[in-house]
Parts: sequence; structure tokens; C-alpha cells
Amino acid sequence: MRHGTVAIIGVGLIGGSVGCALRARGLAGRVVGVGRDSARLERAREMGAIHSFELDTGRGVREAEVVVVCTPVSRIVDDVRVAAASMPEDGLITDAGSTKAGIVGAIESVTSARARFIGAHPIAGSEKSGVEHASEDLFERATCVLTPTPRSDPGRLESAARFWSALGCGIRIMSPDEHDAALAKTSHMPHAVASALARFVAPESFDLAAGAFRDTTRVAAADAALWSSIFVENRGPLLDSLEQLEAALAELRSGLRDRDLAAIEAWCEIGCRARREYDRARAVAPRAESGKPPA
Amino acid sequence: MRHGTVAIIGVGLIGGSVGCALRARGLAGRVVGVGRDSARLERAREMGAIHSFELDTGRGVREAEVVVVCTPVSRIVDDVRVAAASMPEDGLITDAGSTKAGIVGAIESVTSARARFIGAHPIAGSEKSGVEHASEDLFERATCVLTPTPRSDPGRLESAARFWSALGCGIRIMSPDEHDAALAKTSHMPHAVASALARFVAPESFDLAAGAFRDTTRVAAADAALWSSIFVENRGPLLDSLEQLEAALAELRSGLRDRDLAAIEAWCEIGCRARREYDRARAVAPRAESGKPPA
Repeated sequence: MRHGTVAIIGVGLIGGSVGCALRARGLAGRVVGVGRDSARLERAREMGAIHSFELDTGRGVREAEVVVVCTPVSRIVDDVRVAAASMPEDGLITDAGSTKAGIVGAIESVTSARARFIGAHPIAGSEKSGVEHASEDLFERATCVLTPTPRSDPGRLESAARFWSALGCGIRIMSPDEHDAALAKTSHMPHAVASALARFVAPESFDLAAGAFRDTTRVAAADAALWSSIFVENRGPLLDSLEQLEAALAELRSGLRDRDLAAIEAWCEIGCRARREYDRARAVAPRAESGKPPA
Repeated sequence: MRHGTVAIIGVGLIGGSVGCALRARGLAGRVVGVGRDSARLERAREMGAIHSFELDTGRGVREAEVVVVCTPVSRIVDDVRVAAASMPEDGLITDAGSTKAGIVGAIESVTSARARFIGAHPIAGSEKSGVEHASEDLFERATCVLTPTPRSDPGRLESAARFWSALGCGIRIMSPDEHDAALAKTSHMPHAVASALARFVAPESFDLAAGAFRDTTRVAAADAALWSSIFVENRGPLLDSLEQLEAALAELRSGLRDRDLAAIEAWCEIGCRARREYDRARAVAPRAESGKPPA
């Protein structure tokens, strides 16, 4: 048992999975869920993701050694501030937000929050949301990026690394900006493009869609409110990435207009080589992958 | 046993699967493979995809009631012409090309070919290629689009529908142009976009990529020569589709620049609703899906 009490603010897919993993691994004496919807929190309790819950954040975090903020990116800063004001002085606050620079920057401007906070992003998820889809092995072999700054407390950084690795994650340390630039390309742009592709196939053509459409658009089903907040939070790196993507697609279009088969084949080879390298890397070091395609 | 001899020109993933399905279902007395590489044809014979093979197309199709042309789109027209000149007069030629308007148009200009040919596209495949990945159930519950024209022979159209449905396909009749416009959106554009996305993630960021990257880029691993030919063959509809996609992405970028959360959420909702409708349709009428993601 590593911790006495852990509080999870926001008990959906991610927060619920943190709770399930803590309990399955015997890492916490008590897991308290904090949220705004008592019916949902009750479901989380029945599932065993949390021991008990509170609607009031201050009360929920009062005895927490660790507070994990798993709310949508637009709410993380406020939740961290409120938690920092009520939790034990020597506690750790970490989060699970998909974007980091804006969140970390805003938190650093508040002394009590800055002292306790280490930004984190466990790279795991699903196009499904809600505690019903939580699972104790969501983080197994996933990477968790920690984004300390020069102002972060080194002891808290160590604690955060221990906390997330105890849940099954491999730890990687990056600056908030590095994180956001990388995730724009590995996650946010693919989500945006999946959504853009999905809109072009109407029901009468569903039977003309095979594996390529099924897989390229899978994550388009993800919650629109959640993802639009992520896109706005990470708008700078996402805009850069989309501009690079459009430049690549403009090259393809130019090859098509010129009927330049050699140019198009060379263009395709770049993506083909990149993806085959990714497949080889995964074959060598397989990792847990959430967001499994629906059966 | 429906057919005496069936000849398959091009015994790779698709042609090999046609052979495996014909034999598993007892639909042909003899399956002859035709190709240019005797080592590969020998492998297909050992696997049981074909009974025998010929390097000479004329000899290979001489006794065939049905000739199935499964070569890359850039070679189909020539293969159909040569087959038409050597096969029995009452035989059927069909193909498995991913594009139709250019191929059907070119074949219609040759009388002997036009008389026997019904264009087909069984919508099944994989990012893997080669007869090693062929399977007897590749076509089960897949849609096969037939693209007859006013000049096609109605008896051959019936025969082609019987042939492909005996392999497990649901049959859909469309004009070549309708087919190409629909497939640009359900298949060719998703392939192109997968390839474009894959190039932006370098090996040092592979561990920062989860389900969204894995699935949106899966088909980028497909053979670059094969797909660049398909892109060039279907360049008109593909260019139209890419322009529509870029307009959609431009809308997103404009929302990002304005930090207009409501506009971005509305934008995401369009793709989200479309994909969820697709998921519901598949839950009601599941279909065989080739191109399963690697384990």
C-alpha cells in the first residue's frame, strides 16, 4: 500500500481507470471520487472505481496524499487551484490532461498550486467516454509524459513518476511545449482528420467502405465537446501541424493534376516507410493500446 | 460445381483469395493462375489457391468459362484485351480493380473485350499484399460493385453477379462514374490521408502515439506502387474529394485562429454524428472486414 487516501477529480473513463488500477494493485487505502453528478459517482462506486465520493472538491481532497485531476482540459486549472487550497500541505497534485503548456502555465501563476503540481498526460484513452468503459489495465505499458518546469518541486516530480509508473505507465519527461508539439502530430491532428473524413460518407455508401474508412475514422466518434476543448487548448501546435499536412496533401494534388505517377509513388513511399517503421517498432516493444477498434 | 475452368490473372492477395474461395466452396473444377513470376505462382499452387499456372495469358485462359483479372489497375485493360482474344466465345471476363471509369471505358473500345466484360470491384483488401495473405473468406459479406454500361451484355451481367455472390459478396450495381466518386471518399482519400499523417511522426515519438495514430495511419503501410496507380486512375474524383476535405480542414483552422470553441465543437459534431451512424449501421448489419488491424 503506497498511499493512504487518493482523490480523483472527474471520474470518467480516465479517472475511473485510475481508481480501478489503484484498487486492483492495492496502491491506496482509500480512493475518493470528486465530481458534480452524484448518480455518475454512485455508478463509479458500485463499479469499485472509488470507495466513496464528494460533490465538494474541498471536502473530497482534505485528506488526500495525491489528487489526480481527470476533468476535461478546460476545467483542469480551476480544479487544481481549488484542490491546492484544501489538501494537505505535503500532498501531490497531478492531472491527466491531453494538453500541457496552457494548463501548466496557468497553474504556475498560483503559488499554492505550483508547489504541489506536476503536469502529466497518460497516453491512453478510447473513443468511448464515461466510467462504464473504465478499466484497471488502461495504463498498462502506456507512456505517461510528465511535464515539470524549472519551478517544479523535484520531490513532487519523483512522487508523480512513482505514482504513474505504479499504475503501469512508462514515464517520459518533456517540457510542456515539447509535449504539445508532439501530441499535435501523434493525437490531435489524427483526431481532427478522422472527424473531417467521416463526414464525407453518407449512409447509402456505408457498404462501399471497408477497412481504410473504418480505421481512419474510428476516433471521429469521440466526444465532440471534449475534443474541441483539446483542439482549442492546443491551437498553436495543431495549426502548425494542419498546415504541414495541407502542404503534403497539396503535393499529392499537384502530382494528380500532372498525372505524375513517379511523383505520387514517391509521395506514397514516405508514408509507407514511416508506417512500416512504426509497425516494426511495435512488434519489438508491444504496448497496451486502448481505443481498441470495436469488435 | 458451377464452373469448369476459371482463370485468375494476377494471383496476389485478391486473386489468391478468389482462388481459395472458389476451391473452398467447390465452385470450379479447375482454377488456373496466370502471372509473370513462376516462383510466386508456385507458392499459390502449394497454398491451394490454384490448381496449375501458366505464364502465357493466351494459354492460361484458353478453356476458361470465367476469367478474373486481379492485376493492378494500370494493367487490367491490357490483360482483359489479351484474355478476350484467346478465351472461349461464350466466356465471362470480370475484374477486381479499385477504379472503374477509365478501365471500363478503355475496354469498351475493343469489341471482343466489351462483349465479354463486366467490371467489378469486390470491396475487400488489406494493407498486406501477396498471395501469402490470401484467404478463402476475404469476400464474405463484402460488397462487390458491378459497373455495367448500356453496352454491356445482360447475360454476362447476370453471370458476373452469380459469380461474385457465390464467393460470398453482396452485389451492388452502379455506373463506373458513380463507383469512382463513391470510392474516392470511402477508400482512396482515406488511404491518401493515412499516408500523409504517417509521415509526421518520427520514431522518437512512437511511444507518444496511441489508438488514434495507430488506426488513422494503418493503411499507410499498403504498397505504394499499387496505391499510386489507383490514385492516378481515379485522379478526378480524388482531387474533388481532397478539395472538399481541405475546405473542411480550413474551417477548423479558421475556428482555431479565432479561438471559437462553439464553432469547433459544431465542426466536430458533424464527423462525430456521421461516425456514430456508421457504427450503428455496422452493429445492425455486420460485414466481413478485411484489413484487420495488426494484433
